[in-house]
Amino acid sequence: MAICVLRLGHRTRRDQRITTHVFLSARALGATEGVLCGDQDESVISGLKKVCDVWGGAFQVKYEQSWKKFLAARKRQGWKIAHLTMYGEDFEGVAPKLAGQDVVVVVGAGKVPTELYHLSDYNLAVLNQPHSEISALALFLDRIYGGKETGVELQGKMKIMPNKCGKSVVRVRND
Amino acid sequence: MAICVLRLGHRTRRDQRITTHVFLSARALGATEGVLCGDQDESVISGLKKVCDVWGGAFQVKYEQSWKKFLAARKRQGWKIAHLTMYGEDFEGVAPKLAGQDVVVVVGAGKVPTELYHLSDYNLAVLNQPHSEISALALFLDRIYGGKETGVELQGKMKIMPNKCGKSVVRVRND
Repeated sequence: MAICVLRLGHRTRRDQRITTHVFLSARALGATEGVLCGDQDESVISGLKKVCDVWGGAFQVKYEQSWKKFLAARKRQGWKIAHLTMYGEDFEGVAPKLAGQDVVVVVGAGKVPTELYHLSDYNLAVLNQPHSEISALALFLDRIYGGKETGVELQGKMKIMPNKCGKSVVRVRND
Repeated sequence: MAICVLRLGHRTRRDQRITTHVFLSARALGATEGVLCGDQDESVISGLKKVCDVWGGAFQVKYEQSWKKFLAARKRQGWKIAHLTMYGEDFEGVAPKLAGQDVVVVVGAGKVPTELYHLSDYNLAVLNQPHSEISALALFLDRIYGGKETGVELQGKMKIMPNKCGKSVVRVRND
C-alpha cells in the first residue's frame, strides 16, 4: 500500500501556504509521496524537504509538469485515482475499500479541469459543503487507515515528547 | 454541547487563507462559533458570512480583541479550553471525553504565548509532528463527534447533490 498526494493547479504565492499544509498533512498522516503540479514552486518542495530532514519519515515531494501523463501512468501501474471534491459522492463508503491499495489522492487548487472527473476512479466529497482541501485530505487519509495512522511514529533527528503543559523537544540523532 | 473555535494571533495577509480554512472546517465539522483574535481582518469575517448565507448552518464568526478575557469568561461559564499544539498530549484519549461538553478549541497562528498553555484545560497534539492546524482541527472535531458530524446536513440556499462524476448544485430557497 502506498499513498501519493497530487496537488493540482498550484499557484505560486497565492497557494504557497495551503499547498505546504496539504503536503505536511499528507506526510504526517501516512502518505509517502507528494506531487506538485501547476506552478513549479521550489519553495514548497524545499520547505518539505527540510521538514522531512528534521522530523523523519519517507515522504518525498517532486514536481510534475503534466498531471494527465502522471495519472495515466499510475493507472497503468494499477494505482487507484481518488479526487477529493465537494461535488463528489460520500467518502465514508469508499475510503475503507481503498485500504491496502496504491492510491493517488488528487487535491485541486482553484477550478479543476473536467477531464479529471473522468480520469479519476472516484470523485469523493468529505462533506458536500465548502470547507478545506486540507481537512478533507486529513479525514480521507484517516478513514483509509481506519484511524490508525495517528499512532504511527516518524523517526527523525528531533522528537517531541508529549507534554501536558509546555514543550519538550529532544534531539535523537546528531547527523 | 457547543464548539467554539478560536483563532489566535491572526495576521492579515499572511494568514488570511489559512484562517479562512480553519473557520470553514470548523463550520463544516460541527462548530457553531468562530472567534478571530490578532489582527482585525474583516475580509475573513465577511467571507465566512457569505458562505453561511449560501450554504447554511448556524456558524457565526466575530472578532475579539482580548483572547485572555474571552477564554477566562468562557471558563467561568463552565466551558473547557482545548489548545491544539504539536507539543501536547495525544488527543485520542481526551477528545471522546469532551463529547457533550461546551468546548473552546484554540488554534494558534505563529508562536503561541506561554500563558495559553497554562490557561488551557488541555494542550493536545493531533500527532507530535509538524502538519497543519487545519488537519489537526478536522481530526479533533471528528473524534469529539465520534466520526458522526460528517453525516450532518447544513441547510442553505444552495445544496450539492452527491455526484460520482460531475457537479450537481440545486437552489433550495430563493431568499
